[in-house]
Amino acid sequence: MKKVGVAILGLGVVGGGTYRILTEHREFYRKTQNVDIEVESVLELDRSRALALGVPEEKIASNIAEIVSDPEINIVVEVIGGIGAAREFVLAALNAGKSVVTSNKELFCKYSHELERAAKRQNAGLYFEASCVGGVPIIRTLLDGVQANRISGMMGIINGTTNYILTKMTAEGRSYEECLKEAQKLGYAEADPTADVEGFDAAYKLSILSSLAFHTKVPFAKIYREGITGISQEDIADGMDLGYVLKLLAIGKQSDEGIEVRVHPTFVRKDHPLAAVNDSFNAVYLTGDAVGDVMLYGRGAGALPTGSAIVSDIIYAATHSENKYSTFKNTANAEKDVKFINNFKSAYYLRLTVEDRVGILGKIATIFGRHNVSIVEMVQKGTQQDGKVPLVLITHETKELSVRAAVAGINALGETAHVDTVLRVVS
Amino acid sequence: MKKVGVAILGLGVVGGGTYRILTEHREFYRKTQNVDIEVESVLELDRSRALALGVPEEKIASNIAEIVSDPEINIVVEVIGGIGAAREFVLAALNAGKSVVTSNKELFCKYSHELERAAKRQNAGLYFEASCVGGVPIIRTLLDGVQANRISGMMGIINGTTNYILTKMTAEGRSYEECLKEAQKLGYAEADPTADVEGFDAAYKLSILSSLAFHTKVPFAKIYREGITGISQEDIADGMDLGYVLKLLAIGKQSDEGIEVRVHPTFVRKDHPLAAVNDSFNAVYLTGDAVGDVMLYGRGAGALPTGSAIVSDIIYAATHSENKYSTFKNTANAEKDVKFINNFKSAYYLRLTVEDRVGILGKIATIFGRHNVSIVEMVQKGTQQDGKVPLVLITHETKELSVRAAVAGINALGETAHVDTVLRVVS
Repeated sequence: MKKVGVAILGLGVVGGGTYRILTEHREFYRKTQNVDIEVESVLELDRSRALALGVPEEKIASNIAEIVSDPEINIVVEVIGGIGAAREFVLAALNAGKSVVTSNKELFCKYSHELERAAKRQNAGLYFEASCVGGVPIIRTLLDGVQANRISGMMGIINGTTNYILTKMTAEGRSYEECLKEAQKLGYAEADPTADVEGFDAAYKLSILSSLAFHTKVPFAKIYREGITGISQEDIADGMDLGYVLKLLAIGKQSDEGIEVRVHPTFVRKDHPLAAVNDSFNAVYLTGDAVGDVMLYGRGAGALPTGSAIVSDIIYAATHSENKYSTFKNTANAEKDVKFINNFKSAYYLRLTVEDRVGILGKIATIFGRHNVSIVEMVQKGTQQDGKVPLVLITHETKELSVRAAVAGINALGETAHVDTVLRVVS
Repeated sequence: MKKVGVAILGLGVVGGGTYRILTEHREFYRKTQNVDIEVESVLELDRSRALALGVPEEKIASNIAEIVSDPEINIVVEVIGGIGAAREFVLAALNAGKSVVTSNKELFCKYSHELERAAKRQNAGLYFEASCVGGVPIIRTLLDGVQANRISGMMGIINGTTNYILTKMTAEGRSYEECLKEAQKLGYAEADPTADVEGFDAAYKLSILSSLAFHTKVPFAKIYREGITGISQEDIADGMDLGYVLKLLAIGKQSDEGIEVRVHPTFVRKDHPLAAVNDSFNAVYLTGDAVGDVMLYGRGAGALPTGSAIVSDIIYAATHSENKYSTFKNTANAEKDVKFINNFKSAYYLRLTVEDRVGILGKIATIFGRHNVSIVEMVQKGTQQDGKVPLVLITHETKELSVRAAVAGINALGETAHVDTVLRVVS
């Protein structure tokens, strides 16, 4: 039986989960995978945390050098996060010919080329299933499950924190601030929630997933990004009345015209499979030219779900001597040739406040018409006290820049009318 | 660049789709997968069908011997179906050292050991993603995506025909017979629909999927099977009133007590992700001890979706020289040690017709009590003309044999009461 030695860098939530899975399932993997995986070493500054997990004292390394020089260690798991020590340690491991399994989306998003070059030089493996959508095997699916397809589109709910907040706002009619606080109390959101609520986390993952799906490199900087901090309870309620649920979607599309990649709050029709993805669950909805629509659904975070992805990668690394860094194999310089589309097409939800007098609707309609924005549905939401009325409307599919121009035109009317909310709609 | 020669046995719906995908994507696979896949030969008795697909005359083989003796052919795709010629041809290909990709669930379900032995002897590959759930990469997921987990449960909507019929019955209030006819007209159901509507097709797939999930061999004969031919519009409507949607579920569970495997119509709570899987879509819902709940959703049949699975297997076969028949690697004799559970636990939906007079409900309640069947909810559905009333009830989780005994006890009351429907419920 093949023997494989593993080192874990970082014993936080995910590192701890990985340690537990590996130790509790060792006999199971011997039986079912014909491989004996032993945790040989951990690197964790807080020794008490390692000891509390049951790591034997002699397996706690003092520094990365001990690990990369240990011939018993074949696979190094990096779950430190960030792009400081994590990057340095991963490169050190790869340079020493060890395979690396990482959950680090920021590192992989920003430095995949550098890491892949190091891996190739030493014929080491580089695996990163855990970097995207926790335990959901979306990366293995893109690489080995639907690789026969040209992928034309991908829509994902790939951040659990924002999905939890939006689900609560939708189900309980509460404000963004209240739901964020609850998410923080439950450990679903960090004290500084910026990376999640402003869409950075989702954008890192979209960069990785769309690079794989579209066989090129989609840089983080090319992703249009908008978070959920401005979402009001009114918008969610009005959308529901019209048959839509609000989700933070990560969207990637590829066509002959180029690639578009964007993360923004999006109204999804109630009967779309993504509309039923609630709480901290995640899902990715893919469209391939042969397979059609496929969706993968599951827990996008957490010690054991993310640990599942890491350990599945470890087993893959231990049982496959090929396809070690196949992910970006033809993409090292691909981005030079890629056209990215900023003026994408979408349907839109607009919420306006307008003066309640004759002729205003005509003025607004004229501005929309001038910019080729046509309206599917419009609802006037009763009269407010100050003589102004809220107006909610859904547009046909139209160009982003046309909508922005129409919005600017309406806002230039001054007191007469104002666009309070612009949200995109997927039907 | 690696060159791979493929032969396709059978150019029916799936064979035709496979041929189209391979020929139209050849350059795409050269670019993205670094492999040149050429269809070298097809075996199809109806030459006109091959010619209509654009297969060059010289590539139409006259018999299997031509294919197995052709050194240019590395991979043989079997999409004939059934266990006659398909079995003979697959064994001939494996014996000649060619890898086999098959969509044949019945063949794989019944003869996996024989096929695997032949593959091992020649170090040939054996791939069967297309045998289950069309283009949805559920087999790759079990093998390489969630293999870190002990899988405790699996619930699948894995037959498109029955899901189409049940979806129509639910959405449009029509009868089983009408919806079956429509499915036949649309090509979703065969002229003889037995294999689909009686659950054989789902049971073949469940045998394969649960064998992989539970790392043993789950024989077809161990699967409890019940079809949808007896489903009435009343049951569907009553279930909806109680918050349930009816689906033909394939269920596999593994615990310390053993394995239970069953295919039967099942009420699923409206807010369960499986409840939203409609029309001819399929989905498999897995529960692993680390990853938690994961669902894969997509098209379970059709030329291009199933072709996607076949071609993804071809690419995998072409780019992986290991893990060729890893699926049942430790299971050849495993079934001898497995305990299968017949007296499984479930919640139940029961529909009774009872005489509308004092004391009857007491009698029925006594019988349920005697067999430890306790009731969650009971609804009396108005009075019929003949002095009898329909009674609908949902039980707590209870043992299958207890429910059967209670039903027999009630039916023994003669004219007084009769159980018309027994359906299982998943909440």
